[in-house]
Amino acid sequence: MEKVIRFVEDNQQRNLDDLMEILRIPSISSSTEYKPEVVRCADHLAMRMHETGAARVDVFPTEGHPIVYSEFGAGRAKPTVLVYGHYDVQPVDPVDLWTSPPFEPQVRDGRLYARGATDDKGQLYTHLKAVQAYLRTVGDLPVNVKFIVEGEEEVGSTSLEGFLRAHKEMLAADWVVISDTPMFGKNMPSICYGLRGICYMEIGVKGPGMDLHSGSFGGIVPNPVNVLCEIIASMKDKAGRVQIPGFYDDVIQISQEEREALARLPLDTETLRAAAGVKQLTGELGYTDLERMWARPTLDCNGIWGGYSGEGAKTIIPSWAKAKISMRLVANQDPEKIAELFAHYVREVAPASIGIEVRSLHGGKGFLTPIEHPAVKAAARALERAFGVRTLYIREGGSIPFVATIHEIFRTPCLLVGFGHPEENSHAPDEHMYLDHYFSGIKAAAILYQELSLL
Amino acid sequence: MEKVIRFVEDNQQRNLDDLMEILRIPSISSSTEYKPEVVRCADHLAMRMHETGAARVDVFPTEGHPIVYSEFGAGRAKPTVLVYGHYDVQPVDPVDLWTSPPFEPQVRDGRLYARGATDDKGQLYTHLKAVQAYLRTVGDLPVNVKFIVEGEEEVGSTSLEGFLRAHKEMLAADWVVISDTPMFGKNMPSICYGLRGICYMEIGVKGPGMDLHSGSFGGIVPNPVNVLCEIIASMKDKAGRVQIPGFYDDVIQISQEEREALARLPLDTETLRAAAGVKQLTGELGYTDLERMWARPTLDCNGIWGGYSGEGAKTIIPSWAKAKISMRLVANQDPEKIAELFAHYVREVAPASIGIEVRSLHGGKGFLTPIEHPAVKAAARALERAFGVRTLYIREGGSIPFVATIHEIFRTPCLLVGFGHPEENSHAPDEHMYLDHYFSGIKAAAILYQELSLL
Repeated sequence: MEKVIRFVEDNQQRNLDDLMEILRIPSISSSTEYKPEVVRCADHLAMRMHETGAARVDVFPTEGHPIVYSEFGAGRAKPTVLVYGHYDVQPVDPVDLWTSPPFEPQVRDGRLYARGATDDKGQLYTHLKAVQAYLRTVGDLPVNVKFIVEGEEEVGSTSLEGFLRAHKEMLAADWVVISDTPMFGKNMPSICYGLRGICYMEIGVKGPGMDLHSGSFGGIVPNPVNVLCEIIASMKDKAGRVQIPGFYDDVIQISQEEREALARLPLDTETLRAAAGVKQLTGELGYTDLERMWARPTLDCNGIWGGYSGEGAKTIIPSWAKAKISMRLVANQDPEKIAELFAHYVREVAPASIGIEVRSLHGGKGFLTPIEHPAVKAAARALERAFGVRTLYIREGGSIPFVATIHEIFRTPCLLVGFGHPEENSHAPDEHMYLDHYFSGIKAAAILYQELSLL
Repeated sequence: MEKVIRFVEDNQQRNLDDLMEILRIPSISSSTEYKPEVVRCADHLAMRMHETGAARVDVFPTEGHPIVYSEFGAGRAKPTVLVYGHYDVQPVDPVDLWTSPPFEPQVRDGRLYARGATDDKGQLYTHLKAVQAYLRTVGDLPVNVKFIVEGEEEVGSTSLEGFLRAHKEMLAADWVVISDTPMFGKNMPSICYGLRGICYMEIGVKGPGMDLHSGSFGGIVPNPVNVLCEIIASMKDKAGRVQIPGFYDDVIQISQEEREALARLPLDTETLRAAAGVKQLTGELGYTDLERMWARPTLDCNGIWGGYSGEGAKTIIPSWAKAKISMRLVANQDPEKIAELFAHYVREVAPASIGIEVRSLHGGKGFLTPIEHPAVKAAARALERAFGVRTLYIREGGSIPFVATIHEIFRTPCLLVGFGHPEENSHAPDEHMYLDHYFSGIKAAAILYQELSLL
């Protein structure tokens, strides 16, 4: 183990250079325009795995973006870890708010800036580099390590479930390890035991057949923008509670014990507020900020558009209006059921004078794991050794649909051991990763493999 | 008079050709990009007035778009008519919904299609062609005719009031005639005795400092789109009544007599509904469709935008959201007072967690005139002779800020004698004008000058 750790410490520049190379590929999965770059990124990753010494590397085509799979063998007698990651990234707009171009990685103040730096290329590479450290020093691994790296995480992991079901045997593992979550704070190694799910919808409201003169027709025709605003406004009450009937039916309430544990975490509300750039934090009445972020479902409008948005005053009643609305769900809420409840609610409250269309764009289940599991304890020990401080038990407000899916299919423990940081702008301009976290993350992954081999 | 009428009838093609020529100039006043075309349109109009035989033609620059002024003299002993019109037009988007390009006039089924055909180039030209008919036949006019044609009607007539006040003597007239309103229906000549005013506002809501990851921050930060929807939704109750305190304070209630007169107008609700292209007509509880369109104030969102509107699902909490909202006002409501009430209301209901900006984009007063006035009666006779059917007394839901302004400055009767049609898409794709109305309108204008000269 000492040799492995020393190799990691001696090869920081090389580990950084390799990461920067994959960060230069603009693998934006949401835009068809970037499809060739996504494919190029998958191929680059496969090449890198090959070079690292994988016994097997495959780039599986899907109906969407390819899935990269590889195996690093330790022998049949050893248990197996399946490492999940994604090589696709979020869009970069507004691109003019980036300090350095999103696909030209740059180190500033101990941070590596680039789209994908923390979400998820940097975190994925902690594992690849940990594997490399074993192979270049002791020559083999304490566990078999399999990688499954998808290219559709930022667009709902559409192809993943089918792939998992079709390749159950190939993917078989004793544990799944996922590094795609932030730690609680700088140098605060954390194990994430809960994720929220998501249900992402789009509403279209159709009023007049075309944009109408607001003088001639104002007063007698339904205005689709006003109607859409009314529908959206009706979805939450003053206390921030979602008003869609049945929405909370399957929510697991937070236990008193967990509320107390969450309250003990060193949350700096002012830093959080400043990171969000808001005048005040706000949210559902009766819950703390951490509870609101991690353990309660939400309803947020992601975008709205309709009518005239140009310069000056155009006096029209718009023909239509649209909105994207997503709900973060907690474990046990079913995205498909929520999508149905949502669509039914919208159709119920929509006035008869307008046309309405409700579409589900994507969904994913939440996740909650018992923190007493031996594998969770093993991961906690690995993090403590690598970072030199106590491991925190946290949840995450975001969604990794894969986690619930793999849990359902393989019934295998999923360890969410993330090396990100909450203020790393993962979906925003100036995304970055702390280099300390990257380097300590590689050590933590290496120690984790050993800890798991001893279970 | 017979000669004049015969000249109009003999010169239909020429009158159409001249109109088509000015319709080819894209004089869109709302966009700085089209500024040179607006200026070109003013110059073209001035040239045409000169050619028609004006004693004086001036193109007055303003801080916005130029004002074209001309005089056709009949002698000091004769009374004077001031004809108002505007040569600017609305934007053309969505341009792909036009059957023929907006600035390539085309005649189909007895209608002339082009942006500005009815609003207001076609209606303005009825007067210019009536003047021409006198000058080419009897050689002089029964009244002095002055033209004032502005280029900012579609953007709030910003420069007009200052111009009117600065040129009171030059513009002095016994009556003002405005042809910028629709008739009640096809071949139903109408005098408009009421116009609505307008108050056009823009709201900006600022939430997070940048777009945030809706998983990481969802639940604790104010969402500017949701907040904007709540603010807009709160502006009207279920009965369609505006909830801004003080909004209705200065509204003149509709008299029982007028309600009965309006109820006698041959309104075809189904045609109106079909023209609007809506599933159902709707509006303020307790009022008929005509009352809602003409005699009650409104509040309509003209546009809304914020967050992600592209393909697929982007999981962000947007940084900001904006909306344009206009209120049609009735006579006696003051747009500036309404703008203040609106801004005050928005700031009051906005939660402390977000930043809010409210701007007034433009305003104009409504107008109401007694239908017993001799000049109104003279106009009614002129319309009856030209169209061969009884004249209707109507109101109009739109706004011509000029009317209230000139009424206030000159204390002169304003005759709203329009030759448009409610279904001519005046602010929408496929704007057109009925050729019958154009040709009969020229006759009506000619007869009107004579009728007024006899008062």
